[in-house]
Amino acid sequence: MKKLINSTADVLSESLAGFAAAHAEIVALGDEGKFVRRRNLKRGKTALISGGGSGHEPLHAGFVGRGMLDAACPGQVFTSPTPDQMLAAAEAVDTGGGVLYIVKNYEGDVMNFAMAAEMASGKVATVITDDDVAVETSTYSTGRRGVAGTLIVERMLGAAAEKGADLDALQALGKRVNGQTRSMGVALTSCTVPAAGKPTFTLGEDEMEMGVGIHGEPGRRRVKLAAADAIAEEMMTAILGDLNLKAGSEVLLLANGFGGTPAMELYLMYNSARRILDGRGLKTARSLVGSYVTSLEMAGCSLTVSVLDGELPELWDAPLHTAALRWGA
Amino acid sequence: MKKLINSTADVLSESLAGFAAAHAEIVALGDEGKFVRRRNLKRGKTALISGGGSGHEPLHAGFVGRGMLDAACPGQVFTSPTPDQMLAAAEAVDTGGGVLYIVKNYEGDVMNFAMAAEMASGKVATVITDDDVAVETSTYSTGRRGVAGTLIVERMLGAAAEKGADLDALQALGKRVNGQTRSMGVALTSCTVPAAGKPTFTLGEDEMEMGVGIHGEPGRRRVKLAAADAIAEEMMTAILGDLNLKAGSEVLLLANGFGGTPAMELYLMYNSARRILDGRGLKTARSLVGSYVTSLEMAGCSLTVSVLDGELPELWDAPLHTAALRWGA
Repeated sequence: MKKLINSTADVLSESLAGFAAAHAEIVALGDEGKFVRRRNLKRGKTALISGGGSGHEPLHAGFVGRGMLDAACPGQVFTSPTPDQMLAAAEAVDTGGGVLYIVKNYEGDVMNFAMAAEMASGKVATVITDDDVAVETSTYSTGRRGVAGTLIVERMLGAAAEKGADLDALQALGKRVNGQTRSMGVALTSCTVPAAGKPTFTLGEDEMEMGVGIHGEPGRRRVKLAAADAIAEEMMTAILGDLNLKAGSEVLLLANGFGGTPAMELYLMYNSARRILDGRGLKTARSLVGSYVTSLEMAGCSLTVSVLDGELPELWDAPLHTAALRWGA
Repeated sequence: MKKLINSTADVLSESLAGFAAAHAEIVALGDEGKFVRRRNLKRGKTALISGGGSGHEPLHAGFVGRGMLDAACPGQVFTSPTPDQMLAAAEAVDTGGGVLYIVKNYEGDVMNFAMAAEMASGKVATVITDDDVAVETSTYSTGRRGVAGTLIVERMLGAAAEKGADLDALQALGKRVNGQTRSMGVALTSCTVPAAGKPTFTLGEDEMEMGVGIHGEPGRRRVKLAAADAIAEEMMTAILGDLNLKAGSEVLLLANGFGGTPAMELYLMYNSARRILDGRGLKTARSLVGSYVTSLEMAGCSLTVSVLDGELPELWDAPLHTAALRWGA
């Protein structure tokens, strides 16, 4: 295993320490690293909290800040955080508007966030994301997996919360955005979890995993490496088949790297995907290209399409100031 | 070779097409991809142009926009752009204030930018960056290589140009910033140039290349993989030995990924490097952590320290709006 680490036991704490130091104007560590919180809270705003296993950075801690999350609870790599982390985060950032948990659909995360919600003294609601169209059930999830579309939910809710939306309205908006967001991924290589010390899976020199999960879970099928256009075609066909949009619809297109993918390839995949949208008469009204929801150093990418109707373009564009995404602020 | 591409011949053009489409509010392609230019020029401002081989994205095209570059000339992967690209870019973005070329110290780039400067009809000056302390001469360079510190030069000059600095002042500032900026890198794996189809070099399962260049050029020595703290110590000792700073000095610390490095590891390396600065009584006044000057999918990172004296913190913080770096705008 080749990693820039000191010991597998200290990867998370040392990485979090670096993250908090590098972005001290935006975030602070709470309870010795149980959670990452927004440094300056907005009184009375509904608090948004997410979390999950580490190894997907910048998700979620990189999205803590004005216009997105109020706190993120990092578990060990690919391992759910614990209910006490979520409770501690809620206590720290709930300024009277209640707390909305945004949870990717994995059994451990869903169970632990549900326990935290039950134990909470304040008002709590939950939105579960399940945007991955690749498979209907998977290694760690009953039902579809929550993947890169989660960042779109977090961003839209963050903007709405900043404008004063209450807990019920945010939960409804979260369900709506998740319901019109679809993703699919492909892996060219595996990743290696530090504590495991060896690759999660193996692929032949000419193979790829079509529909891979962000923990290296199996996808739809293992196939021969194909051209970027053919890969994009398969992913976009699955995504658009599920969304069933009318021509003229406006969408956000996210080309997301898994951690080991050069920017050149991501922009090339974005180009392929966008041409497919063009060909179907869909308007790419907003775009995001980069490694935002990763699987450690996995090579590969996901494509996400999210429908931008109603107030959503305005929410997407609203001022945002986090470590990983920043505009208008 | 596992890459998300259609053909090795089209990697650059398709990637540029995606980049320009994704960031159409900031950039436009000039002359069918000869250069990437800022969409809205500021009349009379000295124009800043950089460029070099592709494969280092987001450098340089990702830094085109308000507060940084006016144009970037992309060569094929790890291959210098040609003088006609630079001339075309200069003609397109020189609005009367002359043109400053910012050039990484590689023989091909230096020669081609010099030819372009000679052929120019307008006023042209050049700043060469050579921040890599690893080796004094290398495969493609006479003298030190220009690496991640280049983005700091580009950003400081971009901010100064925006404030009205003229060509001479910008050239002097560029030399000053480059002269107080030092970097060093380490590779855990090689990268694969698409047209070559195989890794540029090979490392054993327990080896790393200490002092690697951003094209995979050899560094100081090939050694056993070490702990992050030990790696940071060697790099920072080389960097700080060369800078020779007084205790209390304020610096910018950049932990830069080479393309295949997870964010967790980058923040961990940042943490190690920052503790070393702390230990020497140096103040980390600004920070940047991410994969900004890459070598395709190489795993590894570089550390850069740049002295922030005088007006430099203010220039660093000034409004910036590019595809890869954005704040205050």
